[in-house]
Amino acid sequence: MSDLKIVVIGGVAAGPKAAARAKRCNPDAQVTLIEKGEWISYGGCGLPYYLGATVKDLNDLMTTSWDAVRTPEFMKATKDIDTLLGWEATRINRADKTVEVKEVKTGEVKILPYDKLVIATGAENFKPPMENINATGVFGMKTPKDAVDMQNYIKTEGVESAVVIGAGLIGMECAEAFANWGLDVTIIEMQGSIFPQVLDAEMGAVFQNYLEGEDLNFMLNTKVEKILVNEEGKVSGVQTDKGTVDAQLVLVAVGVRPCVQLAVDAGLEVDKAIIINDHCQTSDPDIYAAGDCVMTTNLISGQRVYAPMGSTANRQGRVIGTNITGGDEVHKGVLNTAVCKMFDWSLGATGLSERVAKQLGYDTVTAIVPGPDITHFMPGKKLIMTRLVAGRKTRKIPGVQIVGPGKVDKRIDTMVAALTFGATVDDLANMDLSYAPPLSSAMENLTNAANVMKNTIEGKAHDMRYEEFKSKLDSDDVVFVDLRTAHERAQKAIPAKHQLHIPIEELRARANEVPKDKEVVVFCILSTRGFEGQLILNNAGYDNVKFVQGGIQFWPLDK
Amino acid sequence: MSDLKIVVIGGVAAGPKAAARAKRCNPDAQVTLIEKGEWISYGGCGLPYYLGATVKDLNDLMTTSWDAVRTPEFMKATKDIDTLLGWEATRINRADKTVEVKEVKTGEVKILPYDKLVIATGAENFKPPMENINATGVFGMKTPKDAVDMQNYIKTEGVESAVVIGAGLIGMECAEAFANWGLDVTIIEMQGSIFPQVLDAEMGAVFQNYLEGEDLNFMLNTKVEKILVNEEGKVSGVQTDKGTVDAQLVLVAVGVRPCVQLAVDAGLEVDKAIIINDHCQTSDPDIYAAGDCVMTTNLISGQRVYAPMGSTANRQGRVIGTNITGGDEVHKGVLNTAVCKMFDWSLGATGLSERVAKQLGYDTVTAIVPGPDITHFMPGKKLIMTRLVAGRKTRKIPGVQIVGPGKVDKRIDTMVAALTFGATVDDLANMDLSYAPPLSSAMENLTNAANVMKNTIEGKAHDMRYEEFKSKLDSDDVVFVDLRTAHERAQKAIPAKHQLHIPIEELRARANEVPKDKEVVVFCILSTRGFEGQLILNNAGYDNVKFVQGGIQFWPLDK
Repeated sequence: MSDLKIVVIGGVAAGPKAAARAKRCNPDAQVTLIEKGEWISYGGCGLPYYLGATVKDLNDLMTTSWDAVRTPEFMKATKDIDTLLGWEATRINRADKTVEVKEVKTGEVKILPYDKLVIATGAENFKPPMENINATGVFGMKTPKDAVDMQNYIKTEGVESAVVIGAGLIGMECAEAFANWGLDVTIIEMQGSIFPQVLDAEMGAVFQNYLEGEDLNFMLNTKVEKILVNEEGKVSGVQTDKGTVDAQLVLVAVGVRPCVQLAVDAGLEVDKAIIINDHCQTSDPDIYAAGDCVMTTNLISGQRVYAPMGSTANRQGRVIGTNITGGDEVHKGVLNTAVCKMFDWSLGATGLSERVAKQLGYDTVTAIVPGPDITHFMPGKKLIMTRLVAGRKTRKIPGVQIVGPGKVDKRIDTMVAALTFGATVDDLANMDLSYAPPLSSAMENLTNAANVMKNTIEGKAHDMRYEEFKSKLDSDDVVFVDLRTAHERAQKAIPAKHQLHIPIEELRARANEVPKDKEVVVFCILSTRGFEGQLILNNAGYDNVKFVQGGIQFWPLDK
Repeated sequence: MSDLKIVVIGGVAAGPKAAARAKRCNPDAQVTLIEKGEWISYGGCGLPYYLGATVKDLNDLMTTSWDAVRTPEFMKATKDIDTLLGWEATRINRADKTVEVKEVKTGEVKILPYDKLVIATGAENFKPPMENINATGVFGMKTPKDAVDMQNYIKTEGVESAVVIGAGLIGMECAEAFANWGLDVTIIEMQGSIFPQVLDAEMGAVFQNYLEGEDLNFMLNTKVEKILVNEEGKVSGVQTDKGTVDAQLVLVAVGVRPCVQLAVDAGLEVDKAIIINDHCQTSDPDIYAAGDCVMTTNLISGQRVYAPMGSTANRQGRVIGTNITGGDEVHKGVLNTAVCKMFDWSLGATGLSERVAKQLGYDTVTAIVPGPDITHFMPGKKLIMTRLVAGRKTRKIPGVQIVGPGKVDKRIDTMVAALTFGATVDDLANMDLSYAPPLSSAMENLTNAANVMKNTIEGKAHDMRYEEFKSKLDSDDVVFVDLRTAHERAQKAIPAKHQLHIPIEELRARANEVPKDKEVVVFCILSTRGFEGQLILNNAGYDNVKFVQGGIQFWPLDK
């Protein structure tokens, strides 16, 4: 009979996982789970989908796959875990190895002894210091209560317009939820592109262009100066450095702050969040920590990062459950993987963005390869745009981003597996990725991206990136050669001052029509013909030729 | 100015790819593509979808993404490749470095000199020696002509029933095509399960169970003895060792044979197919080969295998195009990756099957983990069943198989990337796979599968496999404990002689109701509760307890 006492502080994701795993590994352990809120073990990442009424019942976020709600009674009966719901841990006494807990409602205090302690206190919304930040109608999105309150407010207050401050994952998921309620939604972001932590600017521009077509409004490079209220003290809009926006609801989604006070007070090593080793152990060997309150390691850069994510919390929780019961498992870190679905598009990224890679001194090359997500002759195909970054000399892939209406997320996972092992573009090019016409292409999008990257790294392919392409449309020194068919050209023109139309099939014969005194930029829809066109013109004696990276399908050109 | 002469024999997949790549790497090379058939560069894997009228126009299989049909004129104008269409290579003279070619229609002969030769002669359908194998109404499925002829035959001959001999990928894809035409379809397979080269028997049984629900008929462990014809000489059915089956159309899909006569005659090293090194070079350094006529290497076993696949052909073709123009690329081998979509389900596999792994002496453990393909509280979720094989001591994953209505194929690709690098279950368990509720679960299916595998390898989880489970349903020495809710139990019973119903939430309290003198088998729907139940009973003093591997959702129990 073991008398191992385990106390777990925090009942949302990492905490319950650690508790359950510990009981599975050591059925005799006495496990107590402490949660100051009203719910345990809920799918926090599902809250935007409850907010948007995609998930109808809040309880659905708290249930097992067999519809059992994870109440303290369930935890006791099924897992033999004691839950203190509505209790807050107020102090850790490392010398005594005890935790002081207080019931939120009554103020009653208990002292719980522990042999192993798990801190899974999560994070809380960051509220920037701003006038009227606590006004009625200003919300954050972190707890089930936030989602419930916001939904009630929309229903009862006649909300017509919402402002979302922050174009990160949570803000954007909630923006879709507001759109589901028919609200007029404006997203305000201080940085110059949406999903700034996930996507590089050009990929953000592509996704934003889609979302504008879904009637979302964006104000980028914009700082909210204060929240405006009406005479009743309710939100009436926001004032920004670019003007005011009317809104009856404001969601503040500018990030979270890890809940680390308990750890700081206990003298544990804390950076922005609690520092743990690869066993998820804090600077006190009997105290473990996991989830949104810890720092982890980016496996590509090796740097310590704060990357709160429900999936990581669960993985770390399991590692802790094993380790505090005598096992030996590690969680080495993350790739900052993120995916998001909005309306009919999705986006995903893993590894380093180009921006971060360059900041870290990587000498990177970028390849952008759009294409249908299944074989092009099959019905139901949809486009995706894959964007690979690789080290020019190392040929290693530090990161990838994909956007589009087609299947994005599991291609990101394929790259997660590849990046976990430090894959090079050569590794990727020859991976035996699956092929069947209803599901993929003979040359899978990732294979194509790797091959385009190889051509670029090896100096065969000369592409022009979106920003440069856009900036040269008006130039008198550049001629754009449209390699598309007449039919394709009729469907979508580009606003280039100097352009020629020579379908790829005619380019060899008509190469001499291309001016010799200008920079030449060839383009097509998806860039399949662009590289071919560049080679044909090179062979015809033109040296200053580039093709538009990724073709013109996805790039916004009219702004 | 280079006068590099390149001759490419075979114009379907690897050949055109090698030719096009060679021209891109060396625009001055003189490239001649020889194809004895009527079409070049077509999507051969799309033929079943043309047969089933999913793809309406045969030309769609021959077009680029911008709807240009890849004719010899197109190849010349766009790629400066000379195509001899309707010409067959009849002899390779390695001493002279020439190829003799003959026009199929006229018999005209030419001699083509080469500096580098590419053999991409593909494969042809295997016709087993059998009475009436050439009768009217007996088809193979290899060329566009096969698909056109078969479709015409269905339309004009009043075909009502079809027999497919061989339950491999091509046979099954065509079976779906026949079903699309409203035919009554019977698939006859000599081996004991469907997709025998792709799926282990238990996974085949699950998929077959689904397909039977889609009205396909199966005869397994059945040998076709002869094809039956009517008085007009047209097919009327087949005679098997298990009886006769009426049919007006018979598709023979028992595999392909690589076209290697040319290579054999030229004295090149040939096993079942042409032997190449990792540069796709044959035993003659100036002769390269790729696609369905070559042997490749299984990257897990290291064994030489024959694994014809359109994706491999394309990858190898590109490698050849690079290497014959002075570059240096390798194609190391394949994982025997295969995916297939039929009706609303799909299946996939990569690496070694359990059967092959065991044949090769691997000491393997198998984990089967079904679950929803996205977060369980989200609408649109569908189930998949993931089946991992791992080495008991090495913890390496030699193979994985997935089936179900949910998203299968790109999870296979994630495993392709993992297996390429020799991933262990520990690597897989902590991969930072993507998470967003509309797209995946916090604990992704592959993560769960890895964790279940770890529990199994480490002796924590004791599962009972499907075959044993099924065989013990009638046993008096076994008691089955149903851990499901009453509601779930009412929906689907299992035909077990001795069973008890104790929902998981009550098992700790009611453990003493379980007989002590029998083997105990606990089960639920997806096995989430099964492992928990085993642990609870172990803790209550029961040693002889197992849970049903994978739960009871997917397993066919009534046959």
